[in-house]
Amino acid sequence: MTKVTAQLSVSLDGCYAGPRHDGAGDWMGSAESRGFFRVTRWVIDAMAWRERLGFAGGEQDTNSRIVAETFEAAGAYVMGRRMADGGEVPWGDEPPFRAPVFVVTHRPRETLVRQGGTSFTYVTDGVAAAVERARAVTNGRNVAVAGGGELVRQVLKAGLLDELELHIVPVVLGTGMRLLDEGLGLDGWEGIELTPTRVVPTPQVTHIRYAVGGRVPLVLDDRGSGGGPARVGVAEGE
Amino acid sequence: MTKVTAQLSVSLDGCYAGPRHDGAGDWMGSAESRGFFRVTRWVIDAMAWRERLGFAGGEQDTNSRIVAETFEAAGAYVMGRRMADGGEVPWGDEPPFRAPVFVVTHRPRETLVRQGGTSFTYVTDGVAAAVERARAVTNGRNVAVAGGGELVRQVLKAGLLDELELHIVPVVLGTGMRLLDEGLGLDGWEGIELTPTRVVPTPQVTHIRYAVGGRVPLVLDDRGSGGGPARVGVAEGE
Repeated sequence: MTKVTAQLSVSLDGCYAGPRHDGAGDWMGSAESRGFFRVTRWVIDAMAWRERLGFAGGEQDTNSRIVAETFEAAGAYVMGRRMADGGEVPWGDEPPFRAPVFVVTHRPRETLVRQGGTSFTYVTDGVAAAVERARAVTNGRNVAVAGGGELVRQVLKAGLLDELELHIVPVVLGTGMRLLDEGLGLDGWEGIELTPTRVVPTPQVTHIRYAVGGRVPLVLDDRGSGGGPARVGVAEGE
Repeated sequence: MTKVTAQLSVSLDGCYAGPRHDGAGDWMGSAESRGFFRVTRWVIDAMAWRERLGFAGGEQDTNSRIVAETFEAAGAYVMGRRMADGGEVPWGDEPPFRAPVFVVTHRPRETLVRQGGTSFTYVTDGVAAAVERARAVTNGRNVAVAGGGELVRQVLKAGLLDELELHIVPVVLGTGMRLLDEGLGLDGWEGIELTPTRVVPTPQVTHIRYAVGGRVPLVLDDRGSGGGPARVGVAEGE
């Protein structure tokens, strides 16, 4: 069954890049890119990634197998406009996706067909429409939300995401672009419940895959302790 | 060798409680407590926790073993003032720590000796002093930073923490009190590196233990891809 999936490399504090670079100067010289390259280092080191990008070398290890598996599972992609714009020139004639990509944008544009199975179709009627367009052409594989983080957050917020895999990298950035933040519109009285379905530890990164449940109220669950004073105290202390 | 350790239950987005309750009204009725009880549910369910608190029942499972192990590893505690104040009455004559506790506070006070091995010593000359006081009486076990989150962050920021275990609970709160946030004083050009030393997955929570390394600059590591255009493009997209 086709699922809508997303996966993102994040720091231990949930950032997928450093503080957003919006202003003057080179992106490669920005704090955003410093954070980004730190949390994606395990990807750039993976042979499966380097092969797709045409780079030599790389590690053939568990992390590389996870990169390969991620590519293989995707029958079609949904992508944010910023990512698509940034990649268009450097990805060149044969982008690494090898599948149809649906770009969420406000600017209408003709579909761009590239070699190796990749095409970019520009969808101007929203995230849900892009997901449906992608779902229709997956050939039984998954719809992969390719990023960036803002699009992943939108898809999660809209309740469209079936599976989220976080690649948790052992570094604390302290500041940066957070995937799961106030932009989700949760108000402190509800949460989004998930179920871990796979945990793969490696020295460089911990891969945790979740099935995404629904938005649910945060109830005070008594758990049989009678709401007693000891429990209150311990809680309050935290 | 005595280590300085901390462990905290957090949501997938890194919150150890809901938005801070500072104002009027009952803490138990606050959004802070809703989030707190969601992320600590696995603890409250654990038999090893319930036994210490004098509650009946509980699960005898991997999570309970981790609670038991956490208690056993601690030879002395360092605790924040808010936690100590909140717990003093409800913990009663025989608090669950069974070890010396050093409370970081601005208010001098005589040591409070309780039954079962627990004492509370009030340290007014700062976090580092409290850690040293604790280190002197661990009997070869660890100094455990008991919480709350703000104290854990201070100890991490001060470079005093050897080991951090996060119990990552599969819920997104979206808003709340985050352990690893701007309070660490990282500016986007440096990070705190860690090394995962143990990952224990359970359906309710993923336990990841880290050895804490140092604060290091975030360098742009080329990884042999020559800083080429493809790499730039993919990065920028994120």
